[in-house]
Amino acid sequence: MSKRHAFFVSDGTGITAEALGLSLLSQFSHVTFERTTLPFIDSVDKAREATAQIDKAAQEGDGRPLVFDTIVDQGVRAELAKANAFFVDIFGTFLKPLEQELTTHSSYSVGKSHAISDRQAYKTRIDAVHFALDNDDGARTRHYDQADIILVGVSRSGKTPTSLYLALQYGLRAANYPLTEEDLDGETLPKVLKPYKSKIFGLLVDADRLAAIRNERMPGSKYASPRQCEIEVRAAQTIYKREHLPCMDVTELSVEEIASRIMQLTGIKRRLS
Amino acid sequence: MSKRHAFFVSDGTGITAEALGLSLLSQFSHVTFERTTLPFIDSVDKAREATAQIDKAAQEGDGRPLVFDTIVDQGVRAELAKANAFFVDIFGTFLKPLEQELTTHSSYSVGKSHAISDRQAYKTRIDAVHFALDNDDGARTRHYDQADIILVGVSRSGKTPTSLYLALQYGLRAANYPLTEEDLDGETLPKVLKPYKSKIFGLLVDADRLAAIRNERMPGSKYASPRQCEIEVRAAQTIYKREHLPCMDVTELSVEEIASRIMQLTGIKRRLS
Repeated sequence: MSKRHAFFVSDGTGITAEALGLSLLSQFSHVTFERTTLPFIDSVDKAREATAQIDKAAQEGDGRPLVFDTIVDQGVRAELAKANAFFVDIFGTFLKPLEQELTTHSSYSVGKSHAISDRQAYKTRIDAVHFALDNDDGARTRHYDQADIILVGVSRSGKTPTSLYLALQYGLRAANYPLTEEDLDGETLPKVLKPYKSKIFGLLVDADRLAAIRNERMPGSKYASPRQCEIEVRAAQTIYKREHLPCMDVTELSVEEIASRIMQLTGIKRRLS
Repeated sequence: MSKRHAFFVSDGTGITAEALGLSLLSQFSHVTFERTTLPFIDSVDKAREATAQIDKAAQEGDGRPLVFDTIVDQGVRAELAKANAFFVDIFGTFLKPLEQELTTHSSYSVGKSHAISDRQAYKTRIDAVHFALDNDDGARTRHYDQADIILVGVSRSGKTPTSLYLALQYGLRAANYPLTEEDLDGETLPKVLKPYKSKIFGLLVDADRLAAIRNERMPGSKYASPRQCEIEVRAAQTIYKREHLPCMDVTELSVEEIASRIMQLTGIKRRLS
């Protein structure tokens, strides 16, 4: 296995450079990458420091470092370009062709993509986060009329992280409600959810996987036993089927994938862009 | 103002294509973009549907649509390329040069970047989310020994969304603790926080902005009055200074920016990559 340094360099948070770089690097699974993110490189001086750091890494690894950068300012980019590295230069590559296509000049302004674009968007997002918190795990149900979606599922099926992700990423008001033993025994939807059927989305998870997750939390408990998990998962499935609820097996999915697929399946429109 | 369609097309969640595309488009602030994300385009059939949708948009807008895609599979990409559009083709542009640089072939496997990479990473992340929830708003303090960071600040200064973002994005265990009237009156750090001084990070926010945020929640209250907000903000500032705590004004920052800057300022290492 060879080892290479990879740098994600940005004039903002570095989130985009990182996401893009990781997405490209994930295609080279037989190379080990030593990864470093350098955010807020927004001046020639900072670029000079970054260049020094990259050059230092160049002397260590098996080959020159890879640099994925989303720096807008041409002077800063030019300074960075002095580093002994292989560049995946997003703005350098795509801005000129885009300018030609749009027959207009870019504004070359820094760090725009994760900045607060407007107050309203900020408020939408923060409100969504607080909505998800206030309506987590069935804590309250009286605000379900304001929910964009209500996730249901057995304990530890991924409801909470998905709700929070939907709030943070898309500004959606996501409540979540656990299917309890009583609901599962009766194989019926909890009464409190019935008026909101059109907003409900059911999560399913493989019983063995669920048992493993629960075992981390309460080792050796009945709650974590494969048998109990299987009974609960089957009952949840029966409820979704009987009530004709949209649902999805999330066993092999990341939180991002669960969130995206739910939006695709339900057609819910994001409140943030 | 001209108007153009912009499509973000991906074989996975579309998050990377979107982030990259928005980052490039934010440079063209005088053009209005009608944005559409097409996730999970992972077969030639789906690419054909996407192409039809893009071609339809081409007949509506002022000029052909822009397409930002992060599709790995060459057959799927070739199908998409038939659309009447301007392409920002990430993999097509950068994979070949990367293969040459790494003197190896890419695996051309689909949707890797936001998939669950391993069970341990999944667990780290979910645990971090539950940690943030359990330790939100000073609800519990007995787990602070396990915290990576403890955010402090006055009510509605952005502690909760930042904690959750640090958990979801970086797998960090972020607790948060509100500075209450008692702490602020005495201009001292709450006793319960004293043993954990090295983990504390203070948030500051402009008093007028704080008043506006609080007014949304409790219009006309003392809590939301400019005077009360100013008193609280000043007292928080005094505490941070007296206790030599790292702190930051977050008024103009997005949640992503706050999180990245905190990590940069404190040197805390992410638990997820």
